[in-house]
Amino acid sequence: MPAVNRQIVLAARPAGMPKESDFRLVESPVGRPAEGQALIRVVYLSVDPYMRGLMRETHGYAKPVGIGETMFGGAVGEVVESRNPGFAPGDFVEGPLGWQEYALSDGTGLRKVDPAAAPLSAALGALGMPGLTAYFGLLEIGRPKAGETVLVSGAGGAVGSLAGQIAKLHGCRAVGIAGSGEKVRWIVEDLGFDAGFNYKTTPDYSAKLKELCPSGVDVYFDNVGGTITDAAVDHLNLRGRIVVCGQISQYNAVKPETGPRLLWHLIMKRARAEGFLVFDFAERYPEGLAALTRWVQEGKLKYREQFTDGIAGAPAAFIGMLGGENIGKQLVRVSNPSGLQ
Amino acid sequence: MPAVNRQIVLAARPAGMPKESDFRLVESPVGRPAEGQALIRVVYLSVDPYMRGLMRETHGYAKPVGIGETMFGGAVGEVVESRNPGFAPGDFVEGPLGWQEYALSDGTGLRKVDPAAAPLSAALGALGMPGLTAYFGLLEIGRPKAGETVLVSGAGGAVGSLAGQIAKLHGCRAVGIAGSGEKVRWIVEDLGFDAGFNYKTTPDYSAKLKELCPSGVDVYFDNVGGTITDAAVDHLNLRGRIVVCGQISQYNAVKPETGPRLLWHLIMKRARAEGFLVFDFAERYPEGLAALTRWVQEGKLKYREQFTDGIAGAPAAFIGMLGGENIGKQLVRVSNPSGLQ
Repeated sequence: MPAVNRQIVLAARPAGMPKESDFRLVESPVGRPAEGQALIRVVYLSVDPYMRGLMRETHGYAKPVGIGETMFGGAVGEVVESRNPGFAPGDFVEGPLGWQEYALSDGTGLRKVDPAAAPLSAALGALGMPGLTAYFGLLEIGRPKAGETVLVSGAGGAVGSLAGQIAKLHGCRAVGIAGSGEKVRWIVEDLGFDAGFNYKTTPDYSAKLKELCPSGVDVYFDNVGGTITDAAVDHLNLRGRIVVCGQISQYNAVKPETGPRLLWHLIMKRARAEGFLVFDFAERYPEGLAALTRWVQEGKLKYREQFTDGIAGAPAAFIGMLGGENIGKQLVRVSNPSGLQ
Repeated sequence: MPAVNRQIVLAARPAGMPKESDFRLVESPVGRPAEGQALIRVVYLSVDPYMRGLMRETHGYAKPVGIGETMFGGAVGEVVESRNPGFAPGDFVEGPLGWQEYALSDGTGLRKVDPAAAPLSAALGALGMPGLTAYFGLLEIGRPKAGETVLVSGAGGAVGSLAGQIAKLHGCRAVGIAGSGEKVRWIVEDLGFDAGFNYKTTPDYSAKLKELCPSGVDVYFDNVGGTITDAAVDHLNLRGRIVVCGQISQYNAVKPETGPRLLWHLIMKRARAEGFLVFDFAERYPEGLAALTRWVQEGKLKYREQFTDGIAGAPAAFIGMLGGENIGKQLVRVSNPSGLQ
């Protein structure tokens, strides 16, 4: 085992879009587990939009990352040494291991992952937080009924691409908004969305939505916010539901963006907008993971992953994800999944 | 019976705040009921914020009033002649009788009102549409729990003043925002709100809300929208609920107003914003009216009315109400409630 643990710490609070200089690679000795701890070699690290919020000085629902602290992040890894009776060397686990090559954990927030059920990386995507976010957000907040139209923004991303497929599995029409022609091709041709469009090359979102959602929008699964959402709200049906999952278009705003006020639409449409965090459904994760795993194994739920190699590449992977460069799930391959280094 | 029916018709679609010249008084012969109809002498006419929407060229949930057509409006009246077996001369009824002195009705939307249960005018306020709006909006959309804080905007109006009292009846802390010192005095001293403030003399809404809602806001019953709502949303608690009842600050906007985007708050707070119309609860009106009537009779629910005399005064009464000049419910006394003219 190497003696050095390479970690990415937050060097500065980003102003607007994060820059690589807002992060710093540091080296420290690989720790030894105390009683009750396990030492885990990180294999895959997830980079997700919510992490942008953790880089702020204050945050609504989680503790911000301090300057000089290791960046927070979900990861999968392999237990290499354990003084915790719940974990043995060779176990694969998923949890908040952080942006680093080795993590010590007392087991808090860790779950074991079965590498035979699906590729290990899926535990950070379709069979992990993004999958559960799509599952509970769509089904519990959006409550789609067969025959309804579900519109998804950020449809080429980790959560949106799954939300649209889950809508299809429930008999809905799924329409996606994404940021590249390849993303639109992927969600329609490979994932089975009924339609989609590239907002970067579409001058009039509202006209396009009218064309692609001729019966209006019953559930709008919003990962993006901003002007895309303004247009979507205009097409909401009576008793429509806005699943407020993410607002990635706003995360890097230096000062809060303004836009048309939308509460009046909620009265006219008797509509509901509801925000959620996947953690709100923690007690029901086993149910969600069972459904997602079954769909993946049956080939009914497809996913795509994009890898950056090495922990040093995590900041660039994160920044690229915020800019929409990923198709599907963006991951950092921190170490070789198949064995010891 | 007089031969002439005086009516207020829509003369022009208002641009911004309606003017008296947007309305016109016309005279026509009092109609005679056809088979199945009743002729009703209007006693009280209600002027309500929703009517502003009916003056637009297009409307989300109701048929707009055409130019030259009698203005739509709820009223109570006395049946003076009937060829409908459901109604007899001397019956008092409430329903969409319009801005006029006499109305013919086939009974659609009419309900009989018991003049012994409460003053007749209450059928347009606490025991009518505004009361039902407060009741179902607060209890079904807001779902307050004892001990929670309920913040009400437009708290000096017909709906808001009732919503705050119903919150108190359910064991909540009720805080009101209103547009005059007398309105604030009334809701706190006479109606039992725990606190309130006059937004017209309060420079920093957010600081004032922090002072008056030290435990945050669990339910925000919004009649107003705009900058008051922007401040309220900042104080929403985890799992807060925004009851989107009205947005009177926006109704006269010539072009849609912009403001800070608020969906992000819904994620951070896992909050819900939901619009509704009282008509959505039509099947449950008997339940709502029974509760409201009991509270009024027991002295637990208080209301205040303000009268303008004569149908010719309806436009001014409506315009004054849009400007917040009313305390409690604004009515037009179209004819003498106590007997024949």
